[in-house]
Amino acid sequence: MHWQDRCAARKRAQLDAVPRDWLIDTPLNTQRNVLDVPRACGLLTPREIEITDTIDIDRLLLNLRTAQWSAVEVTTAFYKRAIIAQQLTNCLTEIFVERALARARELDAHLARTGNPVGPLHGLPISLKDQFAIKGLETIMGYAGWIGRYAENDCVLVKLLYECGAVPFVRTNVPQTLMWGETYNHVFGRTTNPYNRYMTPGGSSGGEGALLALRGSPLGVGTDIGGSVRIPAAFCGLYGLRPSCNRLPYSLSVNVQAGQESIVSVLGPLAPSLRALRAFTHALISAQPWRHDPEALRKEWNYAEEALSAHGGPGARLCFAIMPDNGIIKPHPPVLRAVREVREALEAAGHTVIEWEPHRHLEIYEVGERIFAADDAQDYISECALSGEPLIQTMSPETDAHKYALDEPFARTIVGERRHLSVYELWKLHEEKRALRKSSLDHWEATASKTGTGRPVDAIIAPVEPYTACPHGCNSDAFYTTLYNLLDYTACAFPVTFARKDIDVAQPPHAFRNHEDEAVFKLYDPELFDGMPVGLQLVGRTQEEEGVLAMMEVVDRALKAARGPRDVPF
Amino acid sequence: MHWQDRCAARKRAQLDAVPRDWLIDTPLNTQRNVLDVPRACGLLTPREIEITDTIDIDRLLLNLRTAQWSAVEVTTAFYKRAIIAQQLTNCLTEIFVERALARARELDAHLARTGNPVGPLHGLPISLKDQFAIKGLETIMGYAGWIGRYAENDCVLVKLLYECGAVPFVRTNVPQTLMWGETYNHVFGRTTNPYNRYMTPGGSSGGEGALLALRGSPLGVGTDIGGSVRIPAAFCGLYGLRPSCNRLPYSLSVNVQAGQESIVSVLGPLAPSLRALRAFTHALISAQPWRHDPEALRKEWNYAEEALSAHGGPGARLCFAIMPDNGIIKPHPPVLRAVREVREALEAAGHTVIEWEPHRHLEIYEVGERIFAADDAQDYISECALSGEPLIQTMSPETDAHKYALDEPFARTIVGERRHLSVYELWKLHEEKRALRKSSLDHWEATASKTGTGRPVDAIIAPVEPYTACPHGCNSDAFYTTLYNLLDYTACAFPVTFARKDIDVAQPPHAFRNHEDEAVFKLYDPELFDGMPVGLQLVGRTQEEEGVLAMMEVVDRALKAARGPRDVPF
Repeated sequence: MHWQDRCAARKRAQLDAVPRDWLIDTPLNTQRNVLDVPRACGLLTPREIEITDTIDIDRLLLNLRTAQWSAVEVTTAFYKRAIIAQQLTNCLTEIFVERALARARELDAHLARTGNPVGPLHGLPISLKDQFAIKGLETIMGYAGWIGRYAENDCVLVKLLYECGAVPFVRTNVPQTLMWGETYNHVFGRTTNPYNRYMTPGGSSGGEGALLALRGSPLGVGTDIGGSVRIPAAFCGLYGLRPSCNRLPYSLSVNVQAGQESIVSVLGPLAPSLRALRAFTHALISAQPWRHDPEALRKEWNYAEEALSAHGGPGARLCFAIMPDNGIIKPHPPVLRAVREVREALEAAGHTVIEWEPHRHLEIYEVGERIFAADDAQDYISECALSGEPLIQTMSPETDAHKYALDEPFARTIVGERRHLSVYELWKLHEEKRALRKSSLDHWEATASKTGTGRPVDAIIAPVEPYTACPHGCNSDAFYTTLYNLLDYTACAFPVTFARKDIDVAQPPHAFRNHEDEAVFKLYDPELFDGMPVGLQLVGRTQEEEGVLAMMEVVDRALKAARGPRDVPF
Repeated sequence: MHWQDRCAARKRAQLDAVPRDWLIDTPLNTQRNVLDVPRACGLLTPREIEITDTIDIDRLLLNLRTAQWSAVEVTTAFYKRAIIAQQLTNCLTEIFVERALARARELDAHLARTGNPVGPLHGLPISLKDQFAIKGLETIMGYAGWIGRYAENDCVLVKLLYECGAVPFVRTNVPQTLMWGETYNHVFGRTTNPYNRYMTPGGSSGGEGALLALRGSPLGVGTDIGGSVRIPAAFCGLYGLRPSCNRLPYSLSVNVQAGQESIVSVLGPLAPSLRALRAFTHALISAQPWRHDPEALRKEWNYAEEALSAHGGPGARLCFAIMPDNGIIKPHPPVLRAVREVREALEAAGHTVIEWEPHRHLEIYEVGERIFAADDAQDYISECALSGEPLIQTMSPETDAHKYALDEPFARTIVGERRHLSVYELWKLHEEKRALRKSSLDHWEATASKTGTGRPVDAIIAPVEPYTACPHGCNSDAFYTTLYNLLDYTACAFPVTFARKDIDVAQPPHAFRNHEDEAVFKLYDPELFDGMPVGLQLVGRTQEEEGVLAMMEVVDRALKAARGPRDVPF
């Protein structure tokens, strides 16, 4: 069968998996913002709206383990809303309603029988990026040639989520090869951003971004090798954690460049609340992933670090460093305003804020890009060859590409002519990588002389992208995120505000630093971006998940306090 | 200058660095066992003999921090004994008496001034394998082309040892390329085993092995990528810890294949006492190596794991699995007897011992060897080309090679024709590696059904090599050690007994499994091996240093109890 026919058949099968009575009258494609549709379309009962609007994860978990809400009704509610999200943004891949409800029934029965929840995530529906294999289901991951690959085992993540009592209930869309900050592939097509469907939800965990923005899931799991959790989080008004390498279990999940170990992909949670990230990360680490994943760190949850023992202890005045601009691509006005707002909120809360001096970013980015290109795309090409589908060259293959979409992003210019490296050449690249990591660590440690706390900077606050969610095909850049993958710093994306055309006015041109900086500048149009969520990231040290989540809480509280209770956008 | 002339000049400079009055009348080369020479040669005072014979590290550290022994006299005593060891076994590379004594004087002054030791290793001389760069000294690491390379910085290990109050005082010999289980290079020549100078001390940390066996150092640091700490420990009657990857700081040390990250070299301590390994590992981890080494795990010392929280708690009955024979190379009679003795001692102490079922060892070994050969020796060749020295093809380049030295070890047969791999091919190898790691982890976890403790096997006990220290050129094999590097299991070598010609009699031939198994069988000669130390290794989980050291203590106590106080060989 021709690959296009296989894709079309698979897409039809996906539609067939949707219960007929969960289909809604969808708005016209020209309706850009679809955030209100789930509540307005009539499919959800008031109780289902109440359940799915509960972004307080602790309340959701409490109601589940006390049987105030059954796992079946919570799963049903989120499943219906996920199917609405699918009809609005095309965010799903695998749909398996009966399997999820059967699992939920088991949980309800267990709770009724024993009086005890199965685990810390009892009854919680969790959405999964299309890499996390579930026994008996296909794992297509955006490749036509992977249609029909049924997993023989649950990946370790899924196994542990079951142990924790969770209900994996949908899988979510990705770009072909995963190596894009947008979400489009030949099998399932394109995912759009529910804040504005003309825009991308980001990627590669873009299906998660769109689904969670529509509250079609209380918690999702993505992966991040260059920003793929943080970008959709920032583009969709969510929190998203990029943990350090191997803190959470990746074993038996599928992946692109699966044997590439130079810059390791990690999995991390996305959610509309920060507490959900903590609940997920704490539950998974407490499940001792090293019992099942040989790569997973044997490192227990560190409560002392969560109490900020390495940062002066609970309640200490912290010193944050902000980096509004990395010196490579100047961010758009809404992003720069978000940085200012965070600074003011932190200072108002009594913390110190200094400027972060960017350190060898372009060199770091170059080494990262050269590693990703080290096989001259042989991995991607081999997977495409399975079906004959072409390797995707743009996230905007149709005619709707925005005029400022770049044919050749600056990142590619940096790498220069691609060539398949030898092992010895790769080893030399690793030496460069480690020298940059050492230099960056020393740079951070040296800030101790500037903070006034006696410690180095506690955390960095920086953009995730130089723009908010942008038109399809225009997200060429990952300069602000890939950096921290190569350095393996723990990073958490968080929502700050929304772009406002009235205050985020266009600025006069600056001296452009490179052709992408120029293209990004020209892309800004206050009218176009109006209303899009603006996210930033908080960056801590390697293997400092506990501390980063705790500092994220400090920042979040400061932001909410600065805004006043009525004015909280998230 | 011709490389041979450069080597000769460097060797002369080494001799010039030895204080004239520390030269001794060396025994004839035909005297094989030289263990008694340090005490008998007349260079050491009775007090220096008392100091250097103190293998109880806690007493040594106590006497140092209470100024009963000054750092200067302890450093002097060990330095003199190290120079004796050098004259007997050629175990040293860098000799820097004045620098070490100056450091010791500083420590004494600090203690006198403040009443406080500088750190937990106050005044302790520590020997370092010739990879651990010290600012201002050469780091030659067995390459003629590296003569004259003066380090601009201390490596992180040395920096932290200074913080801990230690006195790095000599560096020790290695084989060219480090990838041999013996110790010979063109610059400094061959290191011999003080138990029998016809024999190798093992390698690649063989200089440490010889030095420590002669008590020329209380504690040494080696590295291990395929057995290079454990082999010299076993061959020289010592304890030696291979920690997990990145638990201890390797940053800024020099290395062979420095960018190779597929199977990572680790550093670990060797010493005549187990407590010394604990003192070193605890001190280094407590110094928070992640502040200076971006690859070092942010994982504090875990006291609960040291109290065997993952193994039933303090005093619990443990279940060990012994693996007397991996099914690839049958060990010699002294090694098999050592395994039996450990089994009996553990059972007498109330523990359970079951047999370990070898799991895919040959596949694991093959993947490891293919990774080490992935650049088709380009790294080694490039380093040799710096001076023109040839790449060493045998650890027995002179005519004294033992008749059973193998031209082509089984390991090379497995790899087959060498070829420089592409990055994509390396990535495919990584996938194999990870599948083997996952399979091995599941295999271990599955032992829970056989132990009777409710837990999987607590630790494995296995040979380090199928023989004790063997004649130069005959150590072809690392099947028992490389396994745990690829799997990244924490492993600790420990001394058990000595080969005895009266009881370790030659056995009749078995059905040989491969040509190396046959060669190893033929190598055994009770007379030749008589009196050589026999070591084994205890193997625990990844990143389980605390638990492995604690279980090692259990085994050590059981062995000593089984022997009675008079009969303890170490």
